[in-house]
Amino acid sequence: MYPKNAWYVACMPEEIADKPLGRQICGEKMVLYRGVEGAAKALEDFCPHRGAPLSLGFVRDGNLVCGYHGLEMGCDGKTVAMPGQRVRGFPCIKSFPVIERYGFIWVWPGDPAQADPAKLPHLAWAESPDWAYGGGLYYIKCDYRLMVDNLMDLTHETYVHASSIGQKEIDEAPVTTRVEGDEVITSRHMENITAPPFWKMALRGNDLPDDQAVDRWQVCHFTPPSHVLIEVGVALAGKGGIDAPQNEKAGSIVVDFITPETETTHWYFWGMARNFKPHDKELTASIREGQGKVFGEDREMLERQQENLLKHPERKLLMLNIDAGGVQSRRVIDRLLAAERPA
Amino acid sequence: MYPKNAWYVACMPEEIADKPLGRQICGEKMVLYRGVEGAAKALEDFCPHRGAPLSLGFVRDGNLVCGYHGLEMGCDGKTVAMPGQRVRGFPCIKSFPVIERYGFIWVWPGDPAQADPAKLPHLAWAESPDWAYGGGLYYIKCDYRLMVDNLMDLTHETYVHASSIGQKEIDEAPVTTRVEGDEVITSRHMENITAPPFWKMALRGNDLPDDQAVDRWQVCHFTPPSHVLIEVGVALAGKGGIDAPQNEKAGSIVVDFITPETETTHWYFWGMARNFKPHDKELTASIREGQGKVFGEDREMLERQQENLLKHPERKLLMLNIDAGGVQSRRVIDRLLAAERPA
Amino acid sequence: MYPKNAWYVACMPEEIADKPLGRQICGEKMVLYRGVEGAAKALEDFCPHRGAPLSLGFVRDGNLVCGYHGLEMGCDGKTVAMPGQRVRGFPCIKSFPVIERYGFIWVWPGDPAQADPAKLPHLAWAESPDWAYGGGLYYIKCDYRLMVDNLMDLTHETYVHASSIGQKEIDEAPVTTRVEGDEVITSRHMENITAPPFWKMALRGNDLPDDQAVDRWQVCHFTPPSHVLIEVGVALAGKGGIDAPQNEKAGSIVVDFITPETETTHWYFWGMARNFKPHDKELTASIREGQGKVFGEDREMLERQQENLLKHPERKLLMLNIDAGGVQSRRVIDRLLAAERPA
Repeated sequence: MYPKNAWYVACMPEEIADKPLGRQICGEKMVLYRGVEGAAKALEDFCPHRGAPLSLGFVRDGNLVCGYHGLEMGCDGKTVAMPGQRVRGFPCIKSFPVIERYGFIWVWPGDPAQADPAKLPHLAWAESPDWAYGGGLYYIKCDYRLMVDNLMDLTHETYVHASSIGQKEIDEAPVTTRVEGDEVITSRHMENITAPPFWKMALRGNDLPDDQAVDRWQVCHFTPPSHVLIEVGVALAGKGGIDAPQNEKAGSIVVDFITPETETTHWYFWGMARNFKPHDKELTASIREGQGKVFGEDREMLERQQENLLKHPERKLLMLNIDAGGVQSRRVIDRLLAAERPA
Repeated sequence: MYPKNAWYVACMPEEIADKPLGRQICGEKMVLYRGVEGAAKALEDFCPHRGAPLSLGFVRDGNLVCGYHGLEMGCDGKTVAMPGQRVRGFPCIKSFPVIERYGFIWVWPGDPAQADPAKLPHLAWAESPDWAYGGGLYYIKCDYRLMVDNLMDLTHETYVHASSIGQKEIDEAPVTTRVEGDEVITSRHMENITAPPFWKMALRGNDLPDDQAVDRWQVCHFTPPSHVLIEVGVALAGKGGIDAPQNEKAGSIVVDFITPETETTHWYFWGMARNFKPHDKELTASIREGQGKVFGEDREMLERQQENLLKHPERKLLMLNIDAGGVQSRRVIDRLLAAERPA
Repeated sequence: MYPKNAWYVACMPEEIADKPLGRQICGEKMVLYRGVEGAAKALEDFCPHRGAPLSLGFVRDGNLVCGYHGLEMGCDGKTVAMPGQRVRGFPCIKSFPVIERYGFIWVWPGDPAQADPAKLPHLAWAESPDWAYGGGLYYIKCDYRLMVDNLMDLTHETYVHASSIGQKEIDEAPVTTRVEGDEVITSRHMENITAPPFWKMALRGNDLPDDQAVDRWQVCHFTPPSHVLIEVGVALAGKGGIDAPQNEKAGSIVVDFITPETETTHWYFWGMARNFKPHDKELTASIREGQGKVFGEDREMLERQQENLLKHPERKLLMLNIDAGGVQSRRVIDRLLAAERPA
């Protein structure tokens, strides 16, 4: 159950740098590649000749050449040529709208007529030289909505990430959740606490002392179909928290683009954008490594939670205060799903 | 098809020494752990909050803490606490009766009201300082009853274990099978034969010559639901066989507790108890290693037999004299299954 | 969908040299072994006693002994003996007609009454001292007919085998396909071209220069149920191509015996027979290694093509000129399938 009329992150540019990439998104097996003038394109990964996956082929003069018998496919899904054949009557394959922006390749797996670029989220940090970004990709065997739940309720940090970003104060601080149109925002503020290891590292990276009390914040923003951006950070205690001056805090944005593959698997594009020391590549690498470890800790929990839910589909899960972010996000998703259903 | 109102071995104590253990028994996904004062406990492996497996959590003050969001579960399946939440209305999860005895953790996966400790088998060897025990655990992909068949017909030793405990005389000696209530006993006695390699080792371990003719015995005891204890041994020839004086024989008890996981998989707890040189830990380790190899030889045969039977469910298998032990054991199991069926 | 009344290659002799072999052919789980006087035999891989796979047993005095409890099975599927048992009433298992010829073990998985040795193809090269053969076996997860298609349309060499035997001239040269009874022949001739790497090696192996223009040919012969023999080679340009004198060309026969396991998996016996330097074992090994790499390149394409077709069973594939060989071969197969269907 995923909306198909939406922009999803399909891949990172480096994944199609050398050759086409086969990836299933929202049930659609696609081949992603760079066509004429390097523009990112997405087609059905199915050669109309004999059903070979086009992702095993290569690009020549902007066309995708099937690696089995050399059929040349255009970016509109119409066959351009084939050795020794007339191709006019060949059946078309689907092509999917693609946009490359903010350092990602985005795809619209649903009705192409509705693919409005204006529906892409605006990511200011991805366009500014004052920000740096580092991230990665995990393949997770669970419903993408379990990942949304996970990210919209950071209480789990205390337990799942006890050794890095978790701390007891998180689940002691109350959360507030509000809905603004299709956006769901869950906020938590902790005052006068000790910074956990990950944030001590970030403080040092920002030339701040790592042994003083801090105010910490987590503000999670869900936007459809399944993007979660989380403002996180710590400021030296009493300096204003999230609103403290830049030189008193270390803040960043946790970036999560969650792309369904099937009903029970998804691609998880994770990363962090920060606006301090944006040119320090070593710091970027170090944060990326730490974050990769943290997000790897969620995987076993989520995949085994999925197994449990599949074994007991009849059970109703609880919806507590801390779950409000996920619950509200699912309501937004349900609205989109209802809108896609034929009348 | 397994009785659920019965005591099964769930795990060995060392498996829950440091952290909770997730294990499926008779179709029930359980978490086994040590609660208040170290008492072994078993609960459904399903957090009532969001379905996370509780086995990924930890124990604090005798309660099981969910590793996802910190819900604290009591050993009765009722939630004790959760950070920032009232938990009175939370749904209960199943708890399973547990007994720790004889060096094993036993669980009753069926109706708790019928879980009578008196139904646990009495294992005298496990309580006596004159006996030593060593054993292990294998995961086997076949119906647990194929393992019962296997152990109640040791003819297979000649073929499956030709290089260790098998010998031609086994399948030449007749077996006798008798049923006493719910117990099935299959006996085989071989006289004046050469000891096979495993028993030569045991003779040497018992300070007896390993190059003389021996009398050998195998007396298999099945008791429900799926316990098989086998008296095995050799005595110097003509000294009385199983009844020979202690210093003329090397005898022991092969211990097999067979715990269904699903219809076609099971946990196989195997071991050997002996009443000679009980304090010789090196001998225990050596026997354990040898036995581990022997029981590993059964695995491929049983798993591929299972595949064959699944492919041909319509075929009736033969029930020969040598199969009487297994056949009678299955009749006992069938009686228990019938008794569990709702009227 | 495979004909069962046909001779298929079941295995190579070395696969049953030391012990019985379990292999599924056309849906039938078989055990292949050498019985009385070393004659190759095939039986159902199912012991009538308890369903154990007979392929885990061993041969004694020409009979197959079950490795579980010692049942002795004759090559006709009737139990010969069992320790301590009368076996007259034991049910029979299926036996399958077997012929060993041309360096292969052939089996007839269908109705034994129709198993006519005269229906075996005649392979002159396999009986002549002027020819050498080297080959191997791959397990491929696709419908065997996708492999027939692959081999009856060598256009794919340009794309799949670009670095070894492929070259642009292949898909530029027209193919002609003709049907002679149950045989389908697809021919392609290329004139005055550069030899690709594999053929340069063969030319050198035949003491011919590898830097001159050549004429190249590919003549594919399909015969039922799924044998494809391909005459391939190069001659120095203008010497007559396939008809050039022996010392002006390097030619050989690509040998492909394709044996279905299930509807979507098969055993692929591949090899090459050549009539130059037949005694040069190093050359045989070198060709075999090169060919093994080439045929390995087809595997991913075929298996992923199969996945695509299973996902889209409703789609009709195209049948182009280049596909005529495969299309005609499938017609022959369809005729055989229709003939096997009960009226």
